[in-house]
Amino acid sequence: MKSLTEQVRAALAGEILAGKYAPGDRLPPEREYAEHTGTSRVTVRRAYDQLEAAGIIVRRRPHGTCVADTFRAHTGPLESVGLITTLPHEFSGRFVAAVSRCCRELDALLVLGIPEPDTGPQQLEIAVRMATRGVKDLIVWGADRNFDFRVFERLRILGVNLVFFDQVLPGDFADYVGLDNRAAIRALLAKAKADGAERMIFVNYSDLDVDTNAERQQAFEACLAETGCRGEVRLLSRGASAAECRLFAAELAAAGAEAPSAVIGVNAPVLQMLFRHPVAGLGLYCVDHVPQLAELGAVGLRQPIGAMAEAAVRALQEQRKKGGKWRAGVRRFAGELVEP
Amino acid sequence: MKSLTEQVRAALAGEILAGKYAPGDRLPPEREYAEHTGTSRVTVRRAYDQLEAAGIIVRRRPHGTCVADTFRAHTGPLESVGLITTLPHEFSGRFVAAVSRCCRELDALLVLGIPEPDTGPQQLEIAVRMATRGVKDLIVWGADRNFDFRVFERLRILGVNLVFFDQVLPGDFADYVGLDNRAAIRALLAKAKADGAERMIFVNYSDLDVDTNAERQQAFEACLAETGCRGEVRLLSRGASAAECRLFAAELAAAGAEAPSAVIGVNAPVLQMLFRHPVAGLGLYCVDHVPQLAELGAVGLRQPIGAMAEAAVRALQEQRKKGGKWRAGVRRFAGELVEP
Repeated sequence: MKSLTEQVRAALAGEILAGKYAPGDRLPPEREYAEHTGTSRVTVRRAYDQLEAAGIIVRRRPHGTCVADTFRAHTGPLESVGLITTLPHEFSGRFVAAVSRCCRELDALLVLGIPEPDTGPQQLEIAVRMATRGVKDLIVWGADRNFDFRVFERLRILGVNLVFFDQVLPGDFADYVGLDNRAAIRALLAKAKADGAERMIFVNYSDLDVDTNAERQQAFEACLAETGCRGEVRLLSRGASAAECRLFAAELAAAGAEAPSAVIGVNAPVLQMLFRHPVAGLGLYCVDHVPQLAELGAVGLRQPIGAMAEAAVRALQEQRKKGGKWRAGVRRFAGELVEP
Repeated sequence: MKSLTEQVRAALAGEILAGKYAPGDRLPPEREYAEHTGTSRVTVRRAYDQLEAAGIIVRRRPHGTCVADTFRAHTGPLESVGLITTLPHEFSGRFVAAVSRCCRELDALLVLGIPEPDTGPQQLEIAVRMATRGVKDLIVWGADRNFDFRVFERLRILGVNLVFFDQVLPGDFADYVGLDNRAAIRALLAKAKADGAERMIFVNYSDLDVDTNAERQQAFEACLAETGCRGEVRLLSRGASAAECRLFAAELAAAGAEAPSAVIGVNAPVLQMLFRHPVAGLGLYCVDHVPQLAELGAVGLRQPIGAMAEAAVRALQEQRKKGGKWRAGVRRFAGELVEP
């Protein structure tokens, strides 16, 4: 049987997790919360004391008691790493394997969560389940941007260490590890130019709003302006039929017939959807690398997935080590051009 | 501080786990074990009593005290499923995703372990680490047969529920879930015959001694005899160079030039190593299915990976439910032919 203080503490933590009180929000005065919970002011004060000691709430004169909005990392042992990611694509599979390798070295268990569908709310649900089962060090591989990722802040407040992979976050509650997309696009454009391409075509999905793709497209547009290359962005639906893909590919091939052109795919699947064979006059380039690209004669960009996984796990360890002094950081990796 | 009884109990459990005493082995008499551990006979008797109550040892007159060799399943809650498997190949990735789906439905955590290299001893090491951290329901995707898998028996005795996937076991300490390889080979041979093939060539690895491959090859040889087809087994090293693969593929193509022939690949990677394009006179068939096979014009066999993952998790639940009444079972699944 939990003591009254524990019950009040758990109830308030639950309300914070559920989003009733956001980071920085003011909490009810002790007297009011005692009425709300049918307990005494002494009980509420004790619960507040404990939550303050845990870094979940702060007492600020003259503002009263607020939910914390500075993110102290939890400093407990790294016994398990929670990894929230999709599968089974080869790139994600290799990432999972690399994180598993790091966990073995640290003698930590790897707890895997696969959101289906891969949306922010599903990721959050898995994260909450892991956190309540004691998995308090999480690596989250970003999902669709149509989700307020700041709700992950609440997990941070409740003592969860967070690293986001391949997902640029709007807040400072998680470390970021990912590809240096700007450098990647710059390297591919330079290579395309050196290969004789006169016109650059960036192909992105029309219906996949993830940060990585958005960053790559922005970098493409910026690099065009910088280098004075001719170019354009073309969008294709992820759900395009085979006939639509053929038509789209034929249009791109027509561009190559006018002048040597380069198609830069936002990732490997988009090029694989479009092309089965090399096309004369059309160089293929990809911000990604899978063995099948070689058959298309495409230039790929190999992401150092092992080093990126290590950086993510290391970031969790740093969070634990720094505790109250932790500040969110960004760690970007350069890729390596791979010729077919 | 642990009591003396607990210390003795833990020491003996450790010795069983380390293999000093195997299932069915006789343990030292109480007096002798007391001397060995520098404790009293009363302490050892209490430790033996507790281990007997936990089903780890049995007292048999007139044989004395032995390590258990009947496998009672542990009946605790299914809070987490440990999955020991390789990644990142697409087939294993899909299996992991399917197990993850089952875990979410049961509100269990999925703890993933990837042995590197993928050998029995590495698998066992991961299994022991999981078990000692409280993950006591394990699905193990088999590895090389050059390992005495019976050492997993000891884990069973210490209260771990086990399901082996895609790995025929020599013992009765785990449930088995996998493909019905005999039916799969029979279906592929019948299809090849119906397609007009007169000569059947089974291609296997020369240096990968896993049960699945061995079963498939045996089934091929048995089916040849049954159906009166002409045929042969050809072996290729997993580490073959591109030049060796081309030479090997040319030899197979020559067989097709003599008479319409069918090449049955033990799995998809072996065919993908050999062929990039369809070959006249040579039908390609595969005990496996990946999308890339369509480009080879190969007939694949789709394994019902979702149903197999469900069966594995369900087997763990059954073990928990049956407890002392559990008996190892075999669950084999039929595949479905997929034309290119």
